[in-house]
Amino acid sequence: MAKITVLGAGAWGTAFAQVLADAGNQVVMWDIDPDVVEEISLRHSNARRLPTVEKLPDAIGAEGDRAKAVEGTDMVVVAIAAQYAGEALKEFKGLLGPDTIVISLMKGIERGTHRRMDQVVCQTLDLDQSRFAAVSGPNLSKEVAAREPGATVVASSDADTAMRVARACTTDYFKAFVTDDVIGLELCGSLKNVTALAVGMSRGAGYGENTAAMIQARGLAELTALGAACGAKAKTFAGLAGVGDLVATCGSPLSRNYTFGFNLGQGKSIEEATRVSKGVAEGVPTTDAVVALGSSLQVETPLATAMSHVLDQGLDCRGMIEELFGGEITPE
Amino acid sequence: MAKITVLGAGAWGTAFAQVLADAGNQVVMWDIDPDVVEEISLRHSNARRLPTVEKLPDAIGAEGDRAKAVEGTDMVVVAIAAQYAGEALKEFKGLLGPDTIVISLMKGIERGTHRRMDQVVCQTLDLDQSRFAAVSGPNLSKEVAAREPGATVVASSDADTAMRVARACTTDYFKAFVTDDVIGLELCGSLKNVTALAVGMSRGAGYGENTAAMIQARGLAELTALGAACGAKAKTFAGLAGVGDLVATCGSPLSRNYTFGFNLGQGKSIEEATRVSKGVAEGVPTTDAVVALGSSLQVETPLATAMSHVLDQGLDCRGMIEELFGGEITPE
Repeated sequence: MAKITVLGAGAWGTAFAQVLADAGNQVVMWDIDPDVVEEISLRHSNARRLPTVEKLPDAIGAEGDRAKAVEGTDMVVVAIAAQYAGEALKEFKGLLGPDTIVISLMKGIERGTHRRMDQVVCQTLDLDQSRFAAVSGPNLSKEVAAREPGATVVASSDADTAMRVARACTTDYFKAFVTDDVIGLELCGSLKNVTALAVGMSRGAGYGENTAAMIQARGLAELTALGAACGAKAKTFAGLAGVGDLVATCGSPLSRNYTFGFNLGQGKSIEEATRVSKGVAEGVPTTDAVVALGSSLQVETPLATAMSHVLDQGLDCRGMIEELFGGEITPE
Repeated sequence: MAKITVLGAGAWGTAFAQVLADAGNQVVMWDIDPDVVEEISLRHSNARRLPTVEKLPDAIGAEGDRAKAVEGTDMVVVAIAAQYAGEALKEFKGLLGPDTIVISLMKGIERGTHRRMDQVVCQTLDLDQSRFAAVSGPNLSKEVAAREPGATVVASSDADTAMRVARACTTDYFKAFVTDDVIGLELCGSLKNVTALAVGMSRGAGYGENTAAMIQARGLAELTALGAACGAKAKTFAGLAGVGDLVATCGSPLSRNYTFGFNLGQGKSIEEATRVSKGVAEGVPTTDAVVALGSSLQVETPLATAMSHVLDQGLDCRGMIEELFGGEITPE
């Protein structure tokens, strides 16, 4: 039994804490909000972020003090909103033991710096890559919290670290696979949101399975090519964290990116969609990051480019698809 | 403008004929049922097989006589139910001109012989591979018939043949890509039905996006490995005809295989599911074919094997997923 600290008691952090507890670990949750810490400590619930779970396992406690939260812990799970991770983690630098493993559940690219989350975590905490692992897969929080059967992927450059983390989060309903392709896993999790925007848009415009499937397949091909240019493995994109996560995200109205795109497809403006979604979806800044990345690596990104014209120039769904089709008949 | 004959006026044959007509070709449909031939000829409709289309394009005619139907035609499209193709095509042997291109829209593996459709077509018609093309992708007939935006893949060992066929079926709403991986395209189209059965089953049992996405990702990995052992390219499985078709099939209650699995997941017996579906779904015999193929090629097929235990031994959904999880933590 390991002692594991989860930083961030959002929906996914809390659901993952439950997986860790179900796998036999002792879990401490830390959150910046003292009310959340108190609720988890005293009432074993997190009504605001994960209302569907009535009672969290007894093995989950909570602690508002950073040093106490991570004291003597074997693993630290980071489940903070991607854009705030760098800032939040600074406060933990120097508090972790020399052998502590740090696990990222975060998906996203840091705005401005364009850093992946593995870079943000390792650079901010001055952590050796061998002690870092990323977890990503088709893992909608609500369904994991309901203990529906599911799987995920644990990536680390160190095979032993990957295996230890995978064991710590495998239960009879949740199965972890391992890989050494950290870059691939990180890119899958963040870049897929551009495709989710486009699929949501086509659904909002009233199109069915064929159009959605075409966008997913073409989006996946684009991400795989970008990943390969960054040193990632094509297999990762064809696996649980790639295709799997893409399919779960594009199939669920629970996804912010899908919903944001849906509203655009129904003819709402960016401003209206942003208002309805209570904020811009992650896929919006990611679209620009993908176009920039493609441009710098000389990889064609027709889907992200078409989506950038939607976001910047108000192109409609039909126009977006026409751009995606392109002019010439080509190999896939 | 080419003259193209479509053999078989089922839903997909008719919807594809409309694509060909929209692309500027003159189309003749042949069907074994004289009533269907008459309806298409006289009323430009096919109410029994494609009731959602009120009026087919004027460029589509119909002809019940085999020799007349294919006389002087540039391309013959075969859209006959996979299990009857061998028998039905025998009657056309000797009727085709030496330069006629033959295109298969069929998905399936011939029972008993385990032949792919490209093998059935080329062997039955004594056709050189260079004159054969297969078309496969996320193409639900009803949506193609409604002219919703979509894409497909044309495969031929001959690049010129692939390009000619792709041009003949590209319109402003339907885009064809080309590949030389005929084996990959054929395997994608037939083997995906095993995954569709399993996804349907998990939906029938009440599970959500995570479980469905996990099954799709693991099923795709299994098919890709099998395909590689047969000489197919991984890229084909990650593309429109692989992931794309899988996603469209698994997302649609229009799919027979999905629906058959759904009924099993709800606790119906094979006999009940067969009765409700008015016949066994294609994925049922394909499951046995995949297990046999894996066994002969020494490729592990955990999903198909688990599904074979569902079909042969009455394993339930939970048991199927447990088998799929396996015991050990492994790379994907």
